[in-house]
Amino acid sequence: MLRRIDVIGAGRVGAPVRERLRERGLDVSGVDADLVLLCVPDGAIANAAAEMAPGPWVAHMSGATPLAALAPHRRRFSVHPLQTFTRSRGAEQLDGAWAAVTAETEEALAAGTWLAETLGLRPFALHDSARTLYHAGAVFASNYVVTLQRAAALLFESAGAPPQALEPLMRRTIENGFELTGPIARGDWDTVAAHRVAIHASRAELDGLYDTLADATAALAT
Amino acid sequence: MLRRIDVIGAGRVGAPVRERLRERGLDVSGVDADLVLLCVPDGAIANAAAEMAPGPWVAHMSGATPLAALAPHRRRFSVHPLQTFTRSRGAEQLDGAWAAVTAETEEALAAGTWLAETLGLRPFALHDSARTLYHAGAVFASNYVVTLQRAAALLFESAGAPPQALEPLMRRTIENGFELTGPIARGDWDTVAAHRVAIHASRAELDGLYDTLADATAALAT
Repeated sequence: MLRRIDVIGAGRVGAPVRERLRERGLDVSGVDADLVLLCVPDGAIANAAAEMAPGPWVAHMSGATPLAALAPHRRRFSVHPLQTFTRSRGAEQLDGAWAAVTAETEEALAAGTWLAETLGLRPFALHDSARTLYHAGAVFASNYVVTLQRAAALLFESAGAPPQALEPLMRRTIENGFELTGPIARGDWDTVAAHRVAIHASRAELDGLYDTLADATAALAT
Repeated sequence: MLRRIDVIGAGRVGAPVRERLRERGLDVSGVDADLVLLCVPDGAIANAAAEMAPGPWVAHMSGATPLAALAPHRRRFSVHPLQTFTRSRGAEQLDGAWAAVTAETEEALAAGTWLAETLGLRPFALHDSARTLYHAGAVFASNYVVTLQRAAALLFESAGAPPQALEPLMRRTIENGFELTGPIARGDWDTVAAHRVAIHASRAELDGLYDTLADATAALAT
């Protein structure tokens, strides 16, 4: 339905997206585009859209940016791949990830859904007004997982344990469907209190993080 | 070296441990044991040890419990599998996980290392005084990952996005070596501020958790 797609930007997302569209036999030469796909930093989307000649579909791939940033264009949508991308990998990074499709018309929703599926993503519709909340959820699930690993690695280093030992544990926590085990699941508050003392003595900068997460775990996960 | 092992307890850890030892051809009948392996709740270790007749090696598999809990026995050690276990799986849960071996003599360290390797674990030595700090690190890497998923799922539900879409994102964050992406990595504090507003309007109970993690991410992960 959209045969000629002009991918603007060749960063973490733009590069694998262009590669995948080429693999699918689409024309990514940028000539006479049916769709201009903005894979640029969030802050550059509005300017890029404003400078574009009207005519083709316009879309962005940002998680938190509203569709209004694509003004003055009306044939517009957004596809946000719910994935973390690295520059050292290619189009296969798209496989199996989900994607939030935001659109204001049935036609735009169909175009966004088609694009997501063509990229190898699993689309779901997301309301424009819910994008920021959705994106905050993604931050918890990706960026803050990095933070937990860094905090755990600091404690392991202080304890003389190898930080790489954390990885099989983190993987299995996901594989086991996020089943909570450990002291808070058992209601073992003596162990939680002992953790607090040990962290304070060795890595006091993590006191607040441990406490906030312990409280949240008791509230959310038990 | 230890042919007859009496595994006490058949819970999340005891059941797969006994199964693995039997698979390895060891005698787990409990008769004339060379080693009594306590796979009981942390709070039950000291009593179980105190009631045991002297003679065989005694070990526990707890993360946070000191070796002193095995008094009055002196031929003692601990092997803590750094893994989360579920009752719906078997001995294969041990494969690939690391294990903290704590011992006070060379002979005990050799016995604990042998046991860990026999179980399919990758042993590393951990000082008795560092066990609590190590265990707190494990809580960050497992229990608190569950908490992040629950928080993210709440935000997704409020946004009308499918919580199961979070899983490929969380897996890839680990596969990519915990490379930080997203707004904090980009220094995009406008998006962080927008997240705060959206969370407060929809799930104010997560305000403090988001803020504490945002601060920790900026401090630890960038």
